[in-house]
Amino acid sequence: MTSRTLIKDIAAQPDGPVTVAGWVETVRDQKKVQFVILRDESGAAQLVNPATRELDPEGVSVGAAEALALTESISALTHGSFVKVTGQLKHDERVKLGGLEVKVGTLEVVSGALETPIAADSSLDKRLDWRFLDLRQPKQNLIFRVQTTFLHALRGVWIEKGLIEIQTPKLMASASESRAELFEVDYFEGKAYLAQSPQFFKQMAQSAGFGGVFEVGPAFRADPSFTSRHATEFTSIDTEISWIDSHEDVMALHEELLVAGFQAVADKHGDEIRELFGVEVTVPSRPFPRIPLAEAKQIVADHGYVVPRADADMDPEGERRISEYVKETYGHEFVFLTDYASSIRPFYHMRHEGDPSLTNSYDLIFNGVEISTGAQREHRVDVLVEQARDKGMDPEELEFYLDFFRYGVPPHGGFGMGLARVLMLMLHEHSIRETTYLFRGPTHLLP
Amino acid sequence: MTSRTLIKDIAAQPDGPVTVAGWVETVRDQKKVQFVILRDESGAAQLVNPATRELDPEGVSVGAAEALALTESISALTHGSFVKVTGQLKHDERVKLGGLEVKVGTLEVVSGALETPIAADSSLDKRLDWRFLDLRQPKQNLIFRVQTTFLHALRGVWIEKGLIEIQTPKLMASASESRAELFEVDYFEGKAYLAQSPQFFKQMAQSAGFGGVFEVGPAFRADPSFTSRHATEFTSIDTEISWIDSHEDVMALHEELLVAGFQAVADKHGDEIRELFGVEVTVPSRPFPRIPLAEAKQIVADHGYVVPRADADMDPEGERRISEYVKETYGHEFVFLTDYASSIRPFYHMRHEGDPSLTNSYDLIFNGVEISTGAQREHRVDVLVEQARDKGMDPEELEFYLDFFRYGVPPHGGFGMGLARVLMLMLHEHSIRETTYLFRGPTHLLP
Repeated sequence: MTSRTLIKDIAAQPDGPVTVAGWVETVRDQKKVQFVILRDESGAAQLVNPATRELDPEGVSVGAAEALALTESISALTHGSFVKVTGQLKHDERVKLGGLEVKVGTLEVVSGALETPIAADSSLDKRLDWRFLDLRQPKQNLIFRVQTTFLHALRGVWIEKGLIEIQTPKLMASASESRAELFEVDYFEGKAYLAQSPQFFKQMAQSAGFGGVFEVGPAFRADPSFTSRHATEFTSIDTEISWIDSHEDVMALHEELLVAGFQAVADKHGDEIRELFGVEVTVPSRPFPRIPLAEAKQIVADHGYVVPRADADMDPEGERRISEYVKETYGHEFVFLTDYASSIRPFYHMRHEGDPSLTNSYDLIFNGVEISTGAQREHRVDVLVEQARDKGMDPEELEFYLDFFRYGVPPHGGFGMGLARVLMLMLHEHSIRETTYLFRGPTHLLP
Repeated sequence: MTSRTLIKDIAAQPDGPVTVAGWVETVRDQKKVQFVILRDESGAAQLVNPATRELDPEGVSVGAAEALALTESISALTHGSFVKVTGQLKHDERVKLGGLEVKVGTLEVVSGALETPIAADSSLDKRLDWRFLDLRQPKQNLIFRVQTTFLHALRGVWIEKGLIEIQTPKLMASASESRAELFEVDYFEGKAYLAQSPQFFKQMAQSAGFGGVFEVGPAFRADPSFTSRHATEFTSIDTEISWIDSHEDVMALHEELLVAGFQAVADKHGDEIRELFGVEVTVPSRPFPRIPLAEAKQIVADHGYVVPRADADMDPEGERRISEYVKETYGHEFVFLTDYASSIRPFYHMRHEGDPSLTNSYDLIFNGVEISTGAQREHRVDVLVEQARDKGMDPEELEFYLDFFRYGVPPHGGFGMGLARVLMLMLHEHSIRETTYLFRGPTHLLP
């Protein structure tokens, strides 16, 4: 490897020789002295070079030609060029950026750059068109370091509990959720469909006796909407566990995972998030508040907002308001809305013992937006078939799925959670397009 | 949660009351006593029940009706049914299975099962048709626990090095590798394609200044072949790092990851793997042997096998033989074949300085089969365009990819590795279909 020092690590080094490498963020090319802000994935530092503008006409001093060449190459640097610099590190409190600078000895341009077409304040659409440049901004870079830490913390919890990581197929013979939002693939002589969720396959693991599983992977929805919360491809965080008594067990695991994830992010990136996003990452306290959906609708109605829907469901504005209410009342950023009506839940959600109009299910709302749906699943095959019929589905099309139940399956449940939504709400961003590496929407397939 | 004890944990418990839950593996229904082997995700235990075949005609003793009912329900148990049992644990050295048994108190059938259509010795095709039942076998279950441990160890290395986890889109506007093996998706009014690898997008992260990234996710190849090593969808382990000097730096990271993965698997599952697969997991020593491809072909030719190919490439039999040679000569299960000819490598592999007929690339062979391809990438855009033209590609179709280079990118490289292949060869299995959760092939879309 190129023996470079990460910029975040040079502060701890003594004055003396150092090699750094990264891209040129700015150049201040003054007559007598040149300054370059060099950034790498860990931070930024100031490079300095006393300019040599012409060869001494009185006689050529030692190294003068090299000095002139160095000055000229710094003058010619374009923003975004990747360079490798060897020089002398000097700690100097007067330097605003980190209290140090590097006096350039040699500078190698390993990759020049065309002039950047975007700025930090360009429109989101334009930034997305140039996502690879947009991601050079410290804020965007931090989002994905936060993502890395968050996911690793979740996996740590799952693994400590003995859950098994699975990779479920994204190519399916039929729909896993609604047929309405299904992508069709030419599959040799026939057709395949892109998985809308790993739902069926994570349930299959329960029938296979895996006990508990998790997966972080892509899910696909042919959803033509253009909101800040929707994408045609998104990363879904999924888990499913056996031998639960109700959805309460799923919520308990859900809480534990989020607490671990937020704790790890706060510990590792709390300061940087405060600095770049102006946000304090709060580790949620357990238990998270739980409110039955019907009660939540009543609460927002009592506060002046009647959800304008004919069915039993919430709407985004209602979710925003109940979240506000919970924050004021309980000081909590999360709330589980529970016991959704069977009429607005998929056929595979278990219904209440004694009241089939309600399900053992929940949505998790975080800072006003739904980030997850969880439920106990119906594991009694006769009841399941009945519920599918009740939804107007043809059980014959679900044969492979129903087989999982016919050959024995323990009581089980789980949830799916959108990674980009969690990050968006954690960092108070306004769109999942900011917290997705490369957003995919109806008109967005590039880069 | 159902307060059950995992079967692996009951050995450490004292004699007394215990609750276990799992599925019925066998029932031995003798006249005077009934035995049930109950399995859960952690192990198996023997349940025992003194049979009560009829009510005492002389008078009804206390609990006799319950005892009769229990006996009858055990007689009626079908293999694969999920049951929850509360009873008395008794350690008894005479019991072969773990030196303990559980005398049944109550037994609840939570999910009955149809008669299982497969056995451990059913054909692979039949087992795959009933994959959820096949996965109940301890060997298959172990494969996915090994997978979990292996991946977690790899991620530990990446994260300790500060690499960033990315989720790259699987929906693309064009091909990422050959156009020949591309799945086409109906995408609203147009077309999209399934990513054959995250190649372009992990390189994009280098231009974005991420320094180093990793991803474990699905990749898709419309490959009509039916070998034991190919699938139309597979889990690809990918990494890409900046500021390398050559492919040697990529190989060094590759070794480090594999050593960590194998060490974790050996530590956590070594005994079980020995018992169930008869395989000793060997942690590979570093450095792995490296042999230039041309030299490897000469070695196998000298040993009597001339690779029957017109081009410069190896074939599977050649890979098997060079691997055998390396094992005999160096006692190593791994070998890097390096410096592949440019003619058989993609346009984005960097070519040798001074000899453009060879590339800075490698394949990694493990126990006779290729599991990975790695390389330094060409980061100089003019050279890259030239190499694309050289391969008969139209640079205009690569515009979005070439932009990553036009705006600056450091020298970089990485590899992609097939997860199922690593597991297959580690456990001496004969097909990736055994080590894939749900195999996808040209005629395999179900379950």
